[in-house]
Amino acid sequence: MINDTDCFVERFELAPSGSGTLDGFSFTVKDNIHVKGRRTSYGNRSWRESHPPATYNALCVDQLLSAGATCVGKVVSDEFTYSLAGENSFYGTPLNPKAAGRIPGGSSSGSASSVADGQADFSVGTDSGGSVRVPASFCGIWGMRPSLHRISEAGVLPFMPSVSTVGLLAADFAVLRKSMRVVLRSGTRLTVKPRRLVLLEDAFALADADIRDAAERRLATIAERAGLRPEWIRLASIAGDGTFDLRKCNEQALGVMQTIEFQNTVGDWIESGAPELGAGLTAFYPAVRAFDRHRHLDGIALCERLFESIGDFMADGTIVCFPTTPTVAPLKGALSDAGTASSFYEKTLAVTSFAGVGRLPEISAPLLTVDGCPVGVSFAAGHYRDEFLLDAVDGLLSGK
Amino acid sequence: MINDTDCFVERFELAPSGSGTLDGFSFTVKDNIHVKGRRTSYGNRSWRESHPPATYNALCVDQLLSAGATCVGKVVSDEFTYSLAGENSFYGTPLNPKAAGRIPGGSSSGSASSVADGQADFSVGTDSGGSVRVPASFCGIWGMRPSLHRISEAGVLPFMPSVSTVGLLAADFAVLRKSMRVVLRSGTRLTVKPRRLVLLEDAFALADADIRDAAERRLATIAERAGLRPEWIRLASIAGDGTFDLRKCNEQALGVMQTIEFQNTVGDWIESGAPELGAGLTAFYPAVRAFDRHRHLDGIALCERLFESIGDFMADGTIVCFPTTPTVAPLKGALSDAGTASSFYEKTLAVTSFAGVGRLPEISAPLLTVDGCPVGVSFAAGHYRDEFLLDAVDGLLSGK
Repeated sequence: MINDTDCFVERFELAPSGSGTLDGFSFTVKDNIHVKGRRTSYGNRSWRESHPPATYNALCVDQLLSAGATCVGKVVSDEFTYSLAGENSFYGTPLNPKAAGRIPGGSSSGSASSVADGQADFSVGTDSGGSVRVPASFCGIWGMRPSLHRISEAGVLPFMPSVSTVGLLAADFAVLRKSMRVVLRSGTRLTVKPRRLVLLEDAFALADADIRDAAERRLATIAERAGLRPEWIRLASIAGDGTFDLRKCNEQALGVMQTIEFQNTVGDWIESGAPELGAGLTAFYPAVRAFDRHRHLDGIALCERLFESIGDFMADGTIVCFPTTPTVAPLKGALSDAGTASSFYEKTLAVTSFAGVGRLPEISAPLLTVDGCPVGVSFAAGHYRDEFLLDAVDGLLSGK
Repeated sequence: MINDTDCFVERFELAPSGSGTLDGFSFTVKDNIHVKGRRTSYGNRSWRESHPPATYNALCVDQLLSAGATCVGKVVSDEFTYSLAGENSFYGTPLNPKAAGRIPGGSSSGSASSVADGQADFSVGTDSGGSVRVPASFCGIWGMRPSLHRISEAGVLPFMPSVSTVGLLAADFAVLRKSMRVVLRSGTRLTVKPRRLVLLEDAFALADADIRDAAERRLATIAERAGLRPEWIRLASIAGDGTFDLRKCNEQALGVMQTIEFQNTVGDWIESGAPELGAGLTAFYPAVRAFDRHRHLDGIALCERLFESIGDFMADGTIVCFPTTPTVAPLKGALSDAGTASSFYEKTLAVTSFAGVGRLPEISAPLLTVDGCPVGVSFAAGHYRDEFLLDAVDGLLSGK
C-alpha cells in the first residue's frame, strides 16, 4: 500500500527499446495495462494476488518504448476502471496537484496525477465512459480518447469490449500529439482545415453556469481567430428525435452496454470467486447485478442508430465542442454521499457519452479555470479522424 | 472427452428468453464463448480446468435467446481458436459431413460441423483470420464474418483485440440473414443495389485451378443475371503499390498483429503457468515466442494504410468476390506434415487477410463443388456495410 497522495503503484525505469520521436520523454502506465514482469492489479487487491505477473508488455507500451520513451512506473487506477472519481480503497486517492483537497478524477487517476505533478511527460490510460477525459479536465492537463478501437487493446485488461479505448494524457499539447502519433501510427490521413465549429447545446446546458459561460467565451475567441462562426446543435437534431438528449444517450444507449459488458467481464470474475471489493464497487455492484440484461437489445440498437446519425453529422472538417465535465473536481469524500454521487455521475456520463456512442476521438484541452480549479474544453471529430482532430486542435489553439 | 466425430463439447437445452424472428430455430455456441453456468474450455484442457464456470452468457448469446432461438449446446473450438484446421488434440476432429475423410476447417470447427450435420440451424463462432469463413467453405455451409467490432465481444474469450470478430454459420441463407440481423440489431442502414461486382485477382491466382475456374464461371453467371459486368482488380491497385499482394498483406500486416496480439493474450497465460498444450500449438508456439515484437510498428502502420485504401475502394454498392479458400478441405492428418501445413496456411491466410485488414464484412456462400468437395465463394462489402452485404448477396443469388 502506498500513502494517499502518491500516484504510483510501483516505480521503476524501463529503458526505451528504440529511438524516435519520443526520445527523452518519460511516461507512466495505468494499472490495468500490462508491463512485462509486473503484476497488473486492475485497482483491486484480490485481482493482483490472484494473477501472475505479465509476461509481455501491452502493445501500446511496446510502441512507446520503441519510439524512444522511458517508462517510469505504473500508476493507480480506479478499481476495475469502474469510476470517475479517483478514490481507490486499496491504493488511496492520488493527489490532484491543481486543485487542493479535490479528487483527481478517474479512472485514470494516477495517470492524470503523475502528469499534472510533473512525474512524467505523458501517461497511458484507458477510457470507457470518460476515464481519460474526466481526470484530464479535473487535473488541468491534456487528454485524448481516440476513436473506438483505433489503438490496439492487446495487453490491456478487458473491461467493456464495445466501449473501451486506450488513451493518453500529457501536460503539453506537443507531447500529446507526438505520443498519440506513435500509437495511432498512420500519419497518412488527409488533413483538412476545420470548416465548422459546432457547440453541443446539451453539454453546455448540463454544465455549471460559470463553466458554461467561460467555455462559451473561450470558444467564441477561438472561432473568431479561425474565421469560423460557432453553430449550436442539440443532440435531438443530430438524432432526428425531438425529445432525445445526452442524458438519454447515456441512460438508454451507452450506459446499458457499459453495465452489461461490465457484468460479462469483471462481474463474471467477481461472482465466480469472493474477491475483496473496495467501497465504491461494494456500493455500485448490487445495481450492476440487478440490471435487466434484456435491455441489451434496445441498447445496442440505439447505440447503432446514434453511431450512424452522429457519423452523418460529423462530416469532414466538423469539430464539436463542449465543456469536458459539467463541474470542477468535487471535494475529496464528497461522492460518498449517494445523492451527490448520483447527480455527479448522471451529468458527467451524459456529457462523455457523446463521443462514446459516436466512437469519436475527443481531446480535452486545459483551457479554463473556474473557482480556482481547472476544467477542460473538449473537441471531438468524426470516427477515425484522429489525425485531423490533433491537427485541428493545434491550429485552433495556436492560431495557425 | 468425446469421440472424434462428435462436434459437441456439451449438449444441453437452453430455452429462449423471449420471442421474435428466431422462434423455433436452434443454435450451438463455440467453446470460446461464455454460456452461463458452463465451463468455457477455449479448446484447451488446462484452461478448462483452471477457470470457473461462466456466471453470465456472452452478450451475443443473450441476444439470440431473446429473439426466440434455443441453444442446444457448446461445440468444439480449435485450441485457443489458433488454427484453421479443426483438429483438436483434446477434443478430436469434428466430422466434416460434406467431405468424407477431410478436416472440417477451423477454428469454428464444431460450429461448422454441427450446422452441416443438421444438429443446429445456426452456430455462433469467432473469426480472427478465417475461423468462420474457412470451416464454412470446407463444410459447404454459409458463414459470415461481420465488420470488425460490429458485434459485441463481451463474454467472448479475448484472442486478438484488433482483429477478432464474432460471426455466424448457417446451412440456409435465410437463417444466416435472420440471425445476423439479431446480433447486428440495426436494420436501419440504407440499402443500395450492388453497383459493382469486383473479382479480387490475387485470391483467384492463389486458388487451385479447378476452384479458380469454377468460381469465375459461377460469378460470371451471377453478374450477368444482375446486369453487371465483373471487373478485375489486384490488391496492388487498391493499395497504390505495384508490388503489393495478398501474401504480403498477410505476412507484413495482419499476420504481424495477429501474432503479437496472440502473445499478449493467450501467450501471456501460457507462459505464466505450464499448461498442457495440444499438438498444433506445441508445434506453432515456438515461432510465436520467437516473433520479433518490434515488427509491430510497421505492422500497425501498414494495417492502417490498407484499411484506408480498401475503405476508399469499397464505395457504396461495391462487392468484392473471390474463392473463400484456395483449396478444398485437406485430408485429415495431412497438415501434420510441416511443408503441407505451411503452404496451406500461407495461401489460405493470404486470402482471408483481405477482409481482415479492411475490417470488412464477408459472407462465404456454399456455391461450388470441386472434386466432390464443397468450396465457398466470398462476397465482401465496405466496413460497417453489413446489412447492405446481406441484402446484396440475397439479391445476387436469388436473382431478385
